[in-house]
Order: sequence, then structure tokens, then C-alpha cells
Amino acid sequence: MSGTGADRVTVIGCGMIGTSIGLALTGAGVAVSLEDRDPRAVAQARLMGAGAPLTPRTPPADLVVVATPPSTVVDTLFAAQARGLGHAYTDVASAKGRIWAEAELRGCDLRGYVPGHPMAGRELSGPAAAQADLFAGRPWILCPYPTVEPRALEAADALVTLCGAHRRDMTPADHDRAVAALSHAPQLVSSALAAQLAGLDPDVLALAGTGVRDTTRIAGGDARLWGDILGQNAVAVADAVDRIARELAVTARELREPGATGSAAVDALLDRGNLGRAALVALRRPRTGPAGPAVPGA
Amino acid sequence: MSGTGADRVTVIGCGMIGTSIGLALTGAGVAVSLEDRDPRAVAQARLMGAGAPLTPRTPPADLVVVATPPSTVVDTLFAAQARGLGHAYTDVASAKGRIWAEAELRGCDLRGYVPGHPMAGRELSGPAAAQADLFAGRPWILCPYPTVEPRALEAADALVTLCGAHRRDMTPADHDRAVAALSHAPQLVSSALAAQLAGLDPDVLALAGTGVRDTTRIAGGDARLWGDILGQNAVAVADAVDRIARELAVTARELREPGATGSAAVDALLDRGNLGRAALVALRRPRTGPAGPAVPGA
Repeated sequence: MSGTGADRVTVIGCGMIGTSIGLALTGAGVAVSLEDRDPRAVAQARLMGAGAPLTPRTPPADLVVVATPPSTVVDTLFAAQARGLGHAYTDVASAKGRIWAEAELRGCDLRGYVPGHPMAGRELSGPAAAQADLFAGRPWILCPYPTVEPRALEAADALVTLCGAHRRDMTPADHDRAVAALSHAPQLVSSALAAQLAGLDPDVLALAGTGVRDTTRIAGGDARLWGDILGQNAVAVADAVDRIARELAVTARELREPGATGSAAVDALLDRGNLGRAALVALRRPRTGPAGPAVPGA
Repeated sequence: MSGTGADRVTVIGCGMIGTSIGLALTGAGVAVSLEDRDPRAVAQARLMGAGAPLTPRTPPADLVVVATPPSTVVDTLFAAQARGLGHAYTDVASAKGRIWAEAELRGCDLRGYVPGHPMAGRELSGPAAAQADLFAGRPWILCPYPTVEPRALEAADALVTLCGAHRRDMTPADHDRAVAALSHAPQLVSSALAAQLAGLDPDVLALAGTGVRDTTRIAGGDARLWGDILGQNAVAVADAVDRIARELAVTARELREPGATGSAAVDALLDRGNLGRAALVALRRPRTGPAGPAVPGA
């Protein structure tokens, strides 16, 4: 698989996403080196076939993928560039604006760095949850700086292609608003719904059907990772969540009106929910393969 | 299938639930008669095998199932009792307190009426969406009046068993709080999430993954029917939705604090979401396949 621009890749961070990237790349014949501050994660990713541990003798990679939690990306990138680990760099964090700005402030080499975000995930975390086809058919967003070198962009593009994803270029601000609506707000809302279940009597909870199971599935995601993600996209998430909270508060107020047997606000919200759902269903279903559940990312 | 207490059943309302009941009963050898104000619904349910149209010559049923929208149940019940359509009556409305009180005020015969609610459904509506095994393994709640005649309760119990469900007896107030948390609030919250998607650019919406698809699935439900249901359970729904709206507003406020890279409220909500989801997952998954041995009613 030579000549793709990413014949040799180093993945820093052997969590679910980083290990999935390693699996996809080794499956495509790429030489993958792995690093994680937890040696057990590297060992597990290696056993799964995601690559070999990075050593001091590993030559510089065509591309270094920083797959650590969002709040650690800039420091990890800066250190990796200082160590000369690769000719080009990317990351997979699901919020981009803050990282984009901080990488510049921190003095990272922006000519060799292409911020990225594969729009796929699961509500499970850690290398054991990795899947080689996690990104197959999914969008993979790149937010390149205007000053990026063509070679770095080619390497990031090759990564997207080798993982079976399709590239979408966006500005960090557009990206962050989009994922706030499509991923981050749904995450917090799903958690708020699931939180209400925590106090229920088990006999009551036993009445739960598939509706509440589906709406709360992503609430099972890694709380620490999600706290980090939402904090990185704080303002766009707050905007989206505030809109939803206001809508719900208005419907509750109308439902409380004495003698109410309905509410214009409720009817309007249900109608708009129908419209939004219809727009989503009208899209071709995303390819998920055996993967299915999406989260940090999707 | 004689001697079950429900050898002859009339179903009024050939929507998704009523037709599913008809299919389950005819499959169990019960003689089912069908009525709907829309003759096309009766025709379709009949073609699907859910029963035969009710005629003036149909003898009184052992049980009449009122499967019309919640706000029409009491009037339909009163009229059916006046017509002498059956020896006992039940309904399937997903809110019970208001109907329970209004049936008494309206002068319905409460000795022969057992309010009920099968805890199963789909986001689709109409007879075409009916399934014979919709209730298999699911809870079916009965809210009998203290004055109910044993024969009516036996007929309602036979209906639950014949549909493969398991009976749970609850007070209307307990029922309504439970379904507000488990079904009605999730419906409104899912609609609020989906409503946010209605205004998105199609290129942005195309980034949607399985997370937002799952959280908004039930937002595709029949808006008119859901408006009716939520209005029937207005106060319990308002209480549940208000709690969620307040939680979301608090997290949004903390996320907006200048320089915030996280929020204690967000972290706490994500943690409680994990707990609630874990409690739900710890339950045996609801049975959806064909009926097995019914679990004894609680």
C-alpha cells in the first residue's frame, strides 16, 4: 500500500478510536506504530492487530494521529512535533474551534498539522471496543489551516481514504455548530433523560419499552470523555441545549394550565419533531457495518 | 379457545394497537369483531386477519376493547355500554387518571369496565403497522376500580394472557407517573431534539450518526395522537419535563461561564445518566419475540 501518502503511521492514544484507526490501517497494509501513556492499552491494541509499539528506533511516520481526549490534544501534538515523530500530524477530537486556536497559541507547527474528526464512534470506550470498519462509509471532517502544506493535507486525506471514510472540509466554527446539534446536545439530553431513571423503583423501571431504551442508549457513554468533549465545545453546546430547555419549559408551562387537555406548544413541537425526524430519515442511512452505535463522534 | 373468559371480543378502533390486539386474538382462536369510524381501517384490519366487521347481528362480546385515542375513550365506552356491545369493557389508553375519573363522572358502568394499558407500541400508526406479537412478553397494566365485578376482571386478564403479555395492576396515579418518566417525557424530549434538526442545512444533517438517529426515533410518532396522550397526562408529564428542562438550563449556564473548559453540573449529569442507563440495561431486555410463558402479574 505504498504511495498513498500514509505508508507509515503512528497513532498516539490507544482508545476505541485510535485502536480502530490502527486496525483499519494495518488491514490496508500500512505500518502502524502505537503509543499510549498506559502500556496496557498499547499491549491490548497490539494483540488485536492494530500495530506495533512505538520505539525510539521507529523512523518518523508519514502521519501521526493524535487520538487522545480533546483537552490533551494540543499538548500531545506539541510534544510529538518536538520529538520529530512524523512529517505530518492530525487529530480526531470531536470539537475543533478551541483546539484550532490553542494549537496556534501554543506554537505548534501548523503547516504540518491538519485538525480532523472522524464522525463515527460507539458508546463503548477503550481498545477492546475498537472495530476495523468503524469509519467505513462515514464522514471524516478536516479543518485545515490556510497555511497547511500540501503534503500534510495529502497524508490526512490518505488516512481518511484508507479508513474507508469520505472527507468533508469545514471551518472549525461550522464543524462545532454542526456537532453540537447532531452529537453533543443529543448526548447531554440523553443523559438528562437517563438521569431521571436512576431514582425509579425497579418495579417501575421494569415497564420500560424500546422508546426509552433508544433515547437513552448514548447516555451509557464514557462520562469523563464526554465531559471533556462538551467542555471543548462549550458555547455551541450551551446554545443548542438552551434552545431545547426553553422549548421543554414552555410546553411544561402550557400543560400545567388549569383544565388543560392539550397545548398548542406541545402540538407545534411534536409537529416540528416529525419534520426533523423525516428530514433525517430521508437521508440514506449511514453505513455502520457491525458497528452500529455511534458516540464520541457521531 | 373456549373458557378463557374472552372467547368473543369486539375491538373498537382499528389503529395500530387495536389491530394488533385483533391479530393476537384471532391467532389464539378468539372470535373478533371490529369497528372503526373509518370503514377503510376496518377493511384493512379485516384483510390482515384481525377479525370481522361488527354488525347489528353480532352477539354481545365477552369483552369490548376500546382502542381509540385517549381523549375519546370515555365517550366511546359510554356509547358502547349503552349499545350493550359486551359483558365487560377495557381500554388501551396510555394515560389513566383522567379517564378513570371521567368515566365515573360520565356515568359509565364501572363494575364492567377495567381500565388498561398494554406497554408496547411502535412509532408507526394505523392498521398497516399492526403486529400479532406486539405485546408478547410486555407488561400490560390494569387499573381496576375497587367496585369491579370479578367476571370483568377475568375477561381483561384473559385478554392480557391471550396477547402473550403479563399483567401488572397499578393505581392510575402510579401508572401515570411511571409512564410520564418512561414514555411521555422521552417522547417530548425526543421531539425537541428532532425539532432542532428541521432547520439544518442538508449538508450538515448528512453528518448525522446513529446516536442522533436513536435519540430521535420516537419523534417520528403520530403527532396528533401524542398531543392527545400528553394532554391526558398533562401534570405528570409537565413535572417530568420541567425537571429535565431545569437540568439542561443549569448545564448550559455553567458551560457559558467565561473560560469554562468543563462544568461540574455537566459532569454530574453525565454520571447520573450513566447510572440511569446502567439500571435500565441491567433489566432483562423486554421480550419482543413470539410469546413464551407469561410472567405472573405483579
